[in-house]
Amino acid sequence: MKTINLQEKQSKFNKQWHPHQIAVVDNMQVLLAKLKGDFVWHAHENEDELFQVLKGTLYMQFRDRTEIVKEGEIIVVPKGVEHCPRTENDEVVEVLLFEKLSTSHTGNVIDKKTQTEYPKI
Amino acid sequence: MKTINLQEKQSKFNKQWHPHQIAVVDNMQVLLAKLKGDFVWHAHENEDELFQVLKGTLYMQFRDRTEIVKEGEIIVVPKGVEHCPRTENDEVVEVLLFEKLSTSHTGNVIDKKTQTEYPKI
Repeated sequence: MKTINLQEKQSKFNKQWHPHQIAVVDNMQVLLAKLKGDFVWHAHENEDELFQVLKGTLYMQFRDRTEIVKEGEIIVVPKGVEHCPRTENDEVVEVLLFEKLSTSHTGNVIDKKTQTEYPKI
Repeated sequence: MKTINLQEKQSKFNKQWHPHQIAVVDNMQVLLAKLKGDFVWHAHENEDELFQVLKGTLYMQFRDRTEIVKEGEIIVVPKGVEHCPRTENDEVVEVLLFEKLSTSHTGNVIDKKTQTEYPKI
């Protein structure tokens, strides 16, 4: 029940593509992450996933198009839909994620970027 | 799977203490609301509730203290905990809420401010 400052929490880590947990709401969690470059094509078969851009511009690639998500904007990736987040021009993009506690980082894909634990900060 | 701009959505309504739904993530929903003055003391017996301040300063009153939540900050109110949001100096505070679809606006309290339906925008 303490106030959580998003920028203060973002300052606590630098590792890219490595979500950190800042809060839990029922069976879901709030994560912060820093993204740079290309992630991994994957889907979450049973869970939706919300991205909110706090800083920079996120390019959310779907198989048929790319959605541009700027600071102050959100996008929900529905369960089962393949997606691959990407950033441009070496920009480090800061995002807030909202997803189930059970959501796997890269769905059913295992990659060198895959994280199995999210530090709590 | 479309990008949602939070400020553009906030511009679509003016009614205070009346959440509007902008997205659903699994069994939870993302709501936007404008708050001014005092709300109603209540608790949600079975659901946590997340507030993110998009504009202004929110005073989240608990029975034993008040947490100040500024722009770029969040607070999670755990299930069962009495709370009463408040703003100061006639400020209209804009918030994003994240809560279960089943969450009642004012918990088990019925008040003239109680909304039973949240418009989708």
